Amino acid sequence: MNLLIVGTVAFDSVETPYGKVERVLGGSGTYAGCAASFFTAPMLAGVVGEDFPDEYFDLLRLRGIDTEGVVRESGKTFHWAGKYETDVNVRTTLLTELNVLEKFDPILPDRFRDVKYLFLANTDPNIQLKVMDQCGKLEFTVLDTMNYWIENTRDALDKALDRADCVLLNDEEARMLCGTPVLRNAARAILEGHPRVVIIKKGEHGVMMFTKDSFFMLPGFPLEVVKDPTGAGDSFAGGFIGWLAAKDRIDETALRQAVAAGSATASFCCEDFSVDRFRRLEIEELTERSAAFGALTMFEPLVMG
Amino acid sequence: MNLLIVGTVAFDSVETPYGKVERVLGGSGTYAGCAASFFTAPMLAGVVGEDFPDEYFDLLRLRGIDTEGVVRESGKTFHWAGKYETDVNVRTTLLTELNVLEKFDPILPDRFRDVKYLFLANTDPNIQLKVMDQCGKLEFTVLDTMNYWIENTRDALDKALDRADCVLLNDEEARMLCGTPVLRNAARAILEGHPRVVIIKKGEHGVMMFTKDSFFMLPGFPLEVVKDPTGAGDSFAGGFIGWLAAKDRIDETALRQAVAAGSATASFCCEDFSVDRFRRLEIEELTERSAAFGALTMFEPLVMG
Repeated sequence: MNLLIVGTVAFDSVETPYGKVERVLGGSGTYAGCAASFFTAPMLAGVVGEDFPDEYFDLLRLRGIDTEGVVRESGKTFHWAGKYETDVNVRTTLLTELNVLEKFDPILPDRFRDVKYLFLANTDPNIQLKVMDQCGKLEFTVLDTMNYWIENTRDALDKALDRADCVLLNDEEARMLCGTPVLRNAARAILEGHPRVVIIKKGEHGVMMFTKDSFFMLPGFPLEVVKDPTGAGDSFAGGFIGWLAAKDRIDETALRQAVAAGSATASFCCEDFSVDRFRRLEIEELTERSAAFGALTMFEPLVMG
Repeated sequence: MNLLIVGTVAFDSVETPYGKVERVLGGSGTYAGCAASFFTAPMLAGVVGEDFPDEYFDLLRLRGIDTEGVVRESGKTFHWAGKYETDVNVRTTLLTELNVLEKFDPILPDRFRDVKYLFLANTDPNIQLKVMDQCGKLEFTVLDTMNYWIENTRDALDKALDRADCVLLNDEEARMLCGTPVLRNAARAILEGHPRVVIIKKGEHGVMMFTKDSFFMLPGFPLEVVKDPTGAGDSFAGGFIGWLAAKDRIDETALRQAVAAGSATASFCCEDFSVDRFRRLEIEELTERSAAFGALTMFEPLVMG
């Protein structure tokens, strides 16, 4: 148990061209936790309301997730609703009811505080800082964020970034954070600070990873059916850090494999609503999919002339 | 001499955050021809006006391009003008003066008609058909097209597609042509017809290649400076078919290498205005860049558990 994930545990209501679900299990912590659970047994911290059903807790525990850090507060569970167009890259948020999330104050159980690997899903950077304050043995912290925090809580975000080892952003956020349209330059700017790894998520276009002296890319997996892309980014993060925590190694080889592990879990996430695909996913399928990622970009060296 | 490229030879006026050029050498045939010239000696067919300077012809010939098929007609040369925003993915077309292109009737020199490899750059599918009619020994025809022809000359386009071996489209065009947002399904629909290879260009996000029983992807190269992306797609096409024509082989290995060759040439194209980067590009740089593409996506197999 050396991985802690701090994120939301939520109700999602989602409509896509493939169907519609109401108040299903969602949230960044849920997706990241389920994804990581294929590689290690993660601890999860977050908050739910009185309306959060025990069966959802059971579902998380069945995946080997330690949910002791998911506290139940009076009030309602965070609820997000969104609709995807035929082109599932186009998403409209219909509803964001923060509910118990509004007053979330992460107090970690004692035994959670010794973790080496930490994933801080997108949330108020003040909360992210508060989590890091409680963990004295951190070796690799992955931090996600979004436009809202970049625009509105920049000071706190800068402090949090200054303690993160790996920053996870989508392309638009990276451009906004660094004020440059060129992703490679954005990554370089971040790497001038504390973080030693920058990962830029590009949705269906895959992912880029930068370190001070390397870069690595994987395309998105060309799925035939994208039933529901909700949670793909957090599933990537969970698979990524889950792999690193399982191997307990941070080097270029492990980081690249971790990106492949994250890409594979994220691709499965899109194949069904909520975390349904993870409930029936076999480790052999992950092995196969990660090998397919490898084969996808393989070509023989070009000999000119 | 087994490769023919049919496309525009034009004046481009381009503004990007890195500078502004007026009436420089451009056009799909120019870019594809220059890119292909690193692998083989291509023949080029197209039309220019009386205002087209001899020095531009010299420039093409210096790259080993046979320009006998580029006819000079009375009137002005095709002129395109566009502006790119700070995010160079955003482009506004400021001007499209077809001029001599409007009445372009491709009559190929006799010795052009025996080619095995043909690249038909984006143009009226009736012209593409007319070119194919003149070439009796074709073995591999790559056809590019765009929204306008998909919407307005669908019958002719379908006939042209039915004789092409490889279709080259961008993602938006693929979705439009096949009426599906999922690129993999779009590719499959095209592969149900005559073409045995479908290549979907995604700009900075790279490229996907589909055959009936394989798919292959390469990400875009993370350039530090994208000075001018004009012609990148045609440079990809030129590098791709140039490689195949040079190796005179169409199999999965050669096709994948050809995508890498095309991606490498396209990445160089973006590093300067017009075909300026190609004028000083060394074959060693192409070898290096294609190897960098290989290293970019390389990771060690994941061993689970």
